[in-house]
Amino acid sequence: MPILPRINSPRDLQGLSLPEMDRLAQEVREYMIEVVRKTGGHLAPSLGAVELAIALLKIFPGLENRIIWDVGHQAYAYKILTGRREAFASLRQLGGLAGFPRSAESPYDAFDTGHSSTSISVGLGMALAKKHKGESGRVIAVIGDGALSSGLAFEGLNQTGDLGANLIVVLNDNGMSIAPNVGALSRFMSRATSGKTYQTFRRELGKRLKSVPAIGDELLSLARRTEESIKALSTPGILFESFKFNYVGPVDGHDLPRLLETFSTLSHVDGPVLVHVLTQKGRGFMPAEKNPSRFHGIGAKFDEESAVSAKPSLTYTKAFGQSLLELARNDKNIIAITAAMPDGTGLIPLAEELPEQFIDVGIAEQHAVTMAAGLASQGLRPVVAIYSSFMQRAYDQIVHDVCLAKLPVLLALDRAGLVGEDGSTHQGLFDISFLRSIPNLSLAAPADQNELRHMLYSALKQPGPVALRYPRGIGPGNVLDTDFKLMPWGKGELVAEGEDVLLLSAGNGKGVCSEARHLLAGQDISAAQINARFIKPLDEELICAAARKCGRVVTVEENVAAGGFGSLVLETLSKHAIYVPVARVAVNDVFVDHGSQAQLRHLLGLDAQGIVARAKALL
Amino acid sequence: MPILPRINSPRDLQGLSLPEMDRLAQEVREYMIEVVRKTGGHLAPSLGAVELAIALLKIFPGLENRIIWDVGHQAYAYKILTGRREAFASLRQLGGLAGFPRSAESPYDAFDTGHSSTSISVGLGMALAKKHKGESGRVIAVIGDGALSSGLAFEGLNQTGDLGANLIVVLNDNGMSIAPNVGALSRFMSRATSGKTYQTFRRELGKRLKSVPAIGDELLSLARRTEESIKALSTPGILFESFKFNYVGPVDGHDLPRLLETFSTLSHVDGPVLVHVLTQKGRGFMPAEKNPSRFHGIGAKFDEESAVSAKPSLTYTKAFGQSLLELARNDKNIIAITAAMPDGTGLIPLAEELPEQFIDVGIAEQHAVTMAAGLASQGLRPVVAIYSSFMQRAYDQIVHDVCLAKLPVLLALDRAGLVGEDGSTHQGLFDISFLRSIPNLSLAAPADQNELRHMLYSALKQPGPVALRYPRGIGPGNVLDTDFKLMPWGKGELVAEGEDVLLLSAGNGKGVCSEARHLLAGQDISAAQINARFIKPLDEELICAAARKCGRVVTVEENVAAGGFGSLVLETLSKHAIYVPVARVAVNDVFVDHGSQAQLRHLLGLDAQGIVARAKALL
Repeated sequence: MPILPRINSPRDLQGLSLPEMDRLAQEVREYMIEVVRKTGGHLAPSLGAVELAIALLKIFPGLENRIIWDVGHQAYAYKILTGRREAFASLRQLGGLAGFPRSAESPYDAFDTGHSSTSISVGLGMALAKKHKGESGRVIAVIGDGALSSGLAFEGLNQTGDLGANLIVVLNDNGMSIAPNVGALSRFMSRATSGKTYQTFRRELGKRLKSVPAIGDELLSLARRTEESIKALSTPGILFESFKFNYVGPVDGHDLPRLLETFSTLSHVDGPVLVHVLTQKGRGFMPAEKNPSRFHGIGAKFDEESAVSAKPSLTYTKAFGQSLLELARNDKNIIAITAAMPDGTGLIPLAEELPEQFIDVGIAEQHAVTMAAGLASQGLRPVVAIYSSFMQRAYDQIVHDVCLAKLPVLLALDRAGLVGEDGSTHQGLFDISFLRSIPNLSLAAPADQNELRHMLYSALKQPGPVALRYPRGIGPGNVLDTDFKLMPWGKGELVAEGEDVLLLSAGNGKGVCSEARHLLAGQDISAAQINARFIKPLDEELICAAARKCGRVVTVEENVAAGGFGSLVLETLSKHAIYVPVARVAVNDVFVDHGSQAQLRHLLGLDAQGIVARAKALL
Repeated sequence: MPILPRINSPRDLQGLSLPEMDRLAQEVREYMIEVVRKTGGHLAPSLGAVELAIALLKIFPGLENRIIWDVGHQAYAYKILTGRREAFASLRQLGGLAGFPRSAESPYDAFDTGHSSTSISVGLGMALAKKHKGESGRVIAVIGDGALSSGLAFEGLNQTGDLGANLIVVLNDNGMSIAPNVGALSRFMSRATSGKTYQTFRRELGKRLKSVPAIGDELLSLARRTEESIKALSTPGILFESFKFNYVGPVDGHDLPRLLETFSTLSHVDGPVLVHVLTQKGRGFMPAEKNPSRFHGIGAKFDEESAVSAKPSLTYTKAFGQSLLELARNDKNIIAITAAMPDGTGLIPLAEELPEQFIDVGIAEQHAVTMAAGLASQGLRPVVAIYSSFMQRAYDQIVHDVCLAKLPVLLALDRAGLVGEDGSTHQGLFDISFLRSIPNLSLAAPADQNELRHMLYSALKQPGPVALRYPRGIGPGNVLDTDFKLMPWGKGELVAEGEDVLLLSAGNGKGVCSEARHLLAGQDISAAQINARFIKPLDEELICAAARKCGRVVTVEENVAAGGFGSLVLETLSKHAIYVPVARVAVNDVFVDHGSQAQLRHLLGLDAQGIVARAKALL
């Protein structure tokens, strides 16, 4: 008889025997694969954390405990086991379960995550709050090894150790972040799995030193004088103990008895502890075990062998990667940089063909941008490809390290606009607002993949910093030119003349605007249409002339309305003393949850129907 | 005969004897104190780095070497010795030398710094560029121990070690960041100065192990199997060697022969090296040696004893600190947080009286905000006080960790607007643009110190996140009420009725608007005046009514125009179909260099004269 159907809350785990829990793990994996086959999702990370979720919920079942899943894409088993078994079938669907922990979804989701490396700082805050209020319960931050390369995790570790706070950090070490790990720290940690472990070595050395009379004792005292030097004799305990954490491990993360024993012991220990758990990404699903990067995050109906959907498609990402590779072949000064997303940003072909011109910094967006500034200051042409929502992490570095000195760094913001199923933490809806206010930075948004190709080429001819924002998925420009064209910098495209209303889009809005224009034409409304191409510098002449002629403007963007493209258009019209009605089609001051891109566009009025409605309201 | 007058470039250091260099250090200190007495500036950090600057320039004099001063406030001696001796008298004055390295000022300033912890990432970029282009010369990043607590520095270290890049990191360890250091790492490092040093211990243990036949050899081989365990036997070398850096030190940073010898040796060594240099902040100036925090950054004509100017004044900072202390006394849930700026944010009295309600996270703005989110999620009321320009570092954390889940974190942005002499890296000119576009976040700006008091009280009654922005220095509200008033949330203040033009300010613009209103009245122009108080939610009703009545609007803010307060007003008027001329008095898409606040306001048209001119242009 299956066990999973009986698990309606963590309390139901309490009566299970060890063999039952092992079977439960198996059932959770099967269910997870079955659902993700339909919904898409982060299969490999979640397959690796099934036993971890069971063990944590078995030992820390009550809501007085707070379990924080860093990033959160590994928390599917946790969701299934905390009263969301049936709801899990709606994973990542509009109105369904989120793909990441969401406190509004369940009290078991202690904190909203999605971006990497927040859990230690959050956990420290929670632990300090518990102490301050005299509350019971433990705080547990589960963080992947890849997430440790981020500075935020380091800042959290550093202070948690200093304060001796009551926090358990579970290092979920699968030897990968999303792509294989980079960084000295990661190599350092990986030594833990080979050779003697820290504790064994420590025991052995201590014993042997003592066994040598006189000299041994003297050595031991010498060692003790240098505080903790014996404890710190091996890796990776050294590192965490130097941060004043008690280090426990490594523990096999698929060995339930070991996990249960470890957490049970820790439930009685105070102070900062780091439990090093070794897990396998994709565990229990052969294709994902073999190729965990491919199965990290996947669409629905994935191919069992490769996680790639059948029809090849020229996404913006692919157009970017392919075009940059062609450019980099002919210009050794081009250096492509990504932050643990070589696949997601389309840079794998370049990394393979031109490894000398590729740097993956790991999950370290701030460093990626500042290092790029260093490269640019010496005459190279760094291209930093990071998702829009993750580029938020490097905001200060863009302002302070790149734009202040006008360094020619090219920022490529993939996944700008609505990203769909990944939901609120991953939508790229702020970049126009936070980038266009920075002096010296150009900001452009291609209307399709082919325009991205030429824009990229043109941006690399600019003497200063440029940001390109382009969306997830496929646009209308499905075939790339073979050559590169220099686009006049700051010039927009007049798509169509018209009399009654100007439809003015930034980026992929061109497609829906064209659609809307035709719908309007069917209702005898003559719409002019402009594809701005450049948000900064904006083609003020073209836009002002059309706005004057039409007397009404509809702006279209996938960004929040506040401070966005439409806001810029208002600033521009005001500057030129053009006082006309403007409807700004944009996201209106909300975080946008998950759903397909098409569903979300419809819901938010960002599709052709939405534009038509706003245009007609102006007339 | 004095030596300093002969030093016109680093080349002039080459012929000096050791005693001459020691005398030069003395002369540089005297000159520095003499100038800073007139100009104000970062005296204590720069006094600590005189020998360091001399030694680096002696060993690495040519421009093929790139010396990056992290933060840059310790680089006065470097400026004086690199052809800017006479110009140094104009330090921090309008049109004069910047207080931080500026590449536009001298080719010796390898990179523009000001914010902390960028130097390792920048240096890595430069080192990789040199390698890529086959260029000679060394890259040297000089970073303080305080700056190491920032995640960005960690990200840089992590990858530099991994890549084995040719970078020399000089750790300028004065045992303080700006205030005394926090963090496990800093305690860890401080052990270096007591007891045996790393090298001594390593040598000794190795020798002794070998001296024990059979067992000693076995031990040694056991140790070697665990790679580098012997090398890592002591602190703080452990930490840096675990990042694959060669660790050298500690070296006395005021011992010129030792520094010269060390750098000379390193000039022939490849790969990542960290030189640990111990310096004394304020070295050579007794009052600053005794109280380096006070003398960290000081105004002109400082009092020799305390670095505090004679007349006590109620700055915004002080009003904030005092009011928060009063509130925290009666609400144990209030937790004040700062990032290495307890003095600069006015929190010292609170920290002293209520240490349980105060946390200094060190230079770790991201962590400060995310930890605050963790505290808030458990029912506490964290107040994070960080300068506006440094809050840029925590942009993603504000979006993702605070605002997404609507957590009641209060962000107190001190130094918002023009900060004056600290110049372009420190101006707080972007926060309205980057904050007002974030959903769920309220944003308010008091017009004076007393309004800040009541706004702070009112903000702590709000159920969600709030940001308060207030400027550096003194405003008009010089006396604080004794009580606290609940301000109606989102309601502006109608300062004066008028007919011809509406003067609409956010924050400290109220003062200049009042001035402008009186000047206009003298020219028979009747100006209405509104102090918005709240930027989000904006008092749309009040503003729209006045805008309709006057038919012309002048907005006033200390922020960039793009996406700022005026931009919000345009959005609001457009939404309410009010089509009137709007002049936006703001900073127009430039980084603003140093100068006094008054000078900069005048230059940028942000004073009463500027407002009058813009208002009259609308008529």
